[in-house]
Amino acid sequence: MVGLPARGKTYIAQKVCRYLQWLSVSTKVFNVGNYRRKLHGAHQMHSFFDPHNTEGESARKEAALEALKDMIKWFLEEDGTVAIFDATNSTRERRCMIIDYCKKYDVQVMFIESICQDESLILQNIMDVKLSSPDYKDMDPEKAAEDFRARISHYEEAYETLNEMKNESDYTYAKLINVGSQVMINMIQGYLQSRIVYYLMNLHILPRNIFFSRHGESVYNLEGKIGGDSKLSPRGRKYALALPELIKANLGDQPLTVWTSTLKRTIETAKHLQYPKLQWKALDELDAGVCDGMTYEEIEAKYPEDYFNRDEDKFNYRYRGGESYRDVVYRLEPVIMELERQQNILIIGHQAILRCIYAYFQKLSQDDLPYVKIPLHTVIKLTPKAYTCQEERYKIDIDAVDTHRPKPKRPTDVSN
Amino acid sequence: MVGLPARGKTYIAQKVCRYLQWLSVSTKVFNVGNYRRKLHGAHQMHSFFDPHNTEGESARKEAALEALKDMIKWFLEEDGTVAIFDATNSTRERRCMIIDYCKKYDVQVMFIESICQDESLILQNIMDVKLSSPDYKDMDPEKAAEDFRARISHYEEAYETLNEMKNESDYTYAKLINVGSQVMINMIQGYLQSRIVYYLMNLHILPRNIFFSRHGESVYNLEGKIGGDSKLSPRGRKYALALPELIKANLGDQPLTVWTSTLKRTIETAKHLQYPKLQWKALDELDAGVCDGMTYEEIEAKYPEDYFNRDEDKFNYRYRGGESYRDVVYRLEPVIMELERQQNILIIGHQAILRCIYAYFQKLSQDDLPYVKIPLHTVIKLTPKAYTCQEERYKIDIDAVDTHRPKPKRPTDVSN
Repeated sequence: MVGLPARGKTYIAQKVCRYLQWLSVSTKVFNVGNYRRKLHGAHQMHSFFDPHNTEGESARKEAALEALKDMIKWFLEEDGTVAIFDATNSTRERRCMIIDYCKKYDVQVMFIESICQDESLILQNIMDVKLSSPDYKDMDPEKAAEDFRARISHYEEAYETLNEMKNESDYTYAKLINVGSQVMINMIQGYLQSRIVYYLMNLHILPRNIFFSRHGESVYNLEGKIGGDSKLSPRGRKYALALPELIKANLGDQPLTVWTSTLKRTIETAKHLQYPKLQWKALDELDAGVCDGMTYEEIEAKYPEDYFNRDEDKFNYRYRGGESYRDVVYRLEPVIMELERQQNILIIGHQAILRCIYAYFQKLSQDDLPYVKIPLHTVIKLTPKAYTCQEERYKIDIDAVDTHRPKPKRPTDVSN
Repeated sequence: MVGLPARGKTYIAQKVCRYLQWLSVSTKVFNVGNYRRKLHGAHQMHSFFDPHNTEGESARKEAALEALKDMIKWFLEEDGTVAIFDATNSTRERRCMIIDYCKKYDVQVMFIESICQDESLILQNIMDVKLSSPDYKDMDPEKAAEDFRARISHYEEAYETLNEMKNESDYTYAKLINVGSQVMINMIQGYLQSRIVYYLMNLHILPRNIFFSRHGESVYNLEGKIGGDSKLSPRGRKYALALPELIKANLGDQPLTVWTSTLKRTIETAKHLQYPKLQWKALDELDAGVCDGMTYEEIEAKYPEDYFNRDEDKFNYRYRGGESYRDVVYRLEPVIMELERQQNILIIGHQAILRCIYAYFQKLSQDDLPYVKIPLHTVIKLTPKAYTCQEERYKIDIDAVDTHRPKPKRPTDVSN
């Protein structure tokens, strides 16, 4: 990362990290601020960051080197793929040092610079994030803000933007100006770099809500069968009727787009909603292959080995002739990309699909992802905040079967 | 498009057009040069393009206006989605005129500027493309090149790059510098614009070959069954053994990457190839849903109506619980994107899959796409050129069943 303080570097680092982790790319953020606090204490005032303060300067360099060392160790020993080095890296000298250091270990470097010329955005960032940072713990907010602004001034004094005229023409970089309203990219190469840039292009920080709902209870749900393309049960139809009021009460007159899969039960559930609608094939339920239309008991009886294997590693288990959760994550990638671009969205989807999307926003591991509780007749509302997603759940009071199967205890546990 | 002559504008226009059309986005290129030739004759010498030649200037403006008029007509009357206005548009005045014209009809404008500072690339473009242009038909190539260079000089005199400092800060644009080694984007909005930019980022013009082969003959092929995940037949295994020599004879020691699907028959076919390999779930054969594992005769007997519907509109027909060719195109989009980024690739795939990819490169319509002949035991080699793909086919002399079903005559024809 490159940029002055309060330009959203950590936000971008966290988003890219989550996106890549969700896609099974081993990714880790190395935040130099954390190293600095560990090495030199948490409560450094702005003078520590003055470029003329040689003691502060060398202390900060020490923190950066410590983080770099750990990063290389992670690449070598833990088979890391993408490390995000989250610091200001705001001088050419520092960037040159990083390049030289990484070259020794054959690590490719891509810089992501965040430039923000919108004063109100910077102020908001200071308020939202920086004042709750460990640097300013237990401090009067006004004093903290003042000190932080002084810190920014110190950085501004020494700041050098990435510049292809100044020996940085062969660096790989992306410059984001005002949260992606302008982007400049240089020497991007390879699949991951081009995906990261595309992802950054699509990010925005406008306030919005993402609603998830499964389809109303279906005939197959009632019969305990998985997959298929059945219609709603009478209770499911009641849920579809009740849904518009709940959404309206929550959103008021804000615009919303409703996404469904191409399967009958989600389209029927969206029927009474008076918003623009879009059908996504990519939102269709996990394909259970030969087990499509069977009950879990039937699967256990007919394919006992598969049934056992699925419970052992549910994320990776691929139904015969069907899909795994891993497969579903890959096919949902364009959906996530589009979700990042959009504002208010309601997805009417399926259990496995919503588990994958929910896990992206709530940063769940691949182990936990296939067991997320996404009950029927419940709306989940996510509101993305700086580093987290706020969550609310609204249960509509219409009964439905419970389709959740908890993570089974391992056989060794059972024998205990 | 924006840029001096011989900067690859028409190449980019054609590529974007093909990409969008393949994705079912109604797209058309409006080439102002064609209008100029129609209105003012084909053999205009360089003085016609001198910015001080007021007669030439107004003639060229007339051609641009004529093209704009047709473009708007196409939007309004033929439900066009993306028009590509292929001309130099190299002054701010001209771009402002286009913006004003389009605003009246609620057409959003996105500029794509191609800047090339590499003299050898420009020269190559002049040689490859411009000298075979209708402007220089039947002319001595040396004279033509000289005249064309003079024409470029005229444009250079008046050329103004897109500049956010000069009243163009709210324009949506992407600037490509030296074929995407640097990209600058401004005010990109919406899904299509962001897809187009991502596509442009991934284009390259290095020479390379793309090889396609279906898997060797499979057990299911022999039995006339579709889908499934069967192994190779003895003849199919022979094909897998013969494949490395054919590729080697063609490629020599050049690097190559082999892509297969996740199905046994493609992995087995790639077995003896000594190159890096990658499995793509997205390359799996079209999912025939309930018809998976059946013969065409069985499908006709069990689902006669489906069988008939499929022949009526094969591109859009979706198997019950399975996919259509249209679905497959969408899931292959990341494969196409990655193919554009890569150099030599051999895809070992399936009939429907290779039809979709082949249709992208050879610009086939959706009507023709599902009937492309991709026979077993045959390697197809595509070599992308400026505006076309050169094609060669190599049949390996090992017998295999013929799985091609030609487009049936319509019932009305049959009754004749």
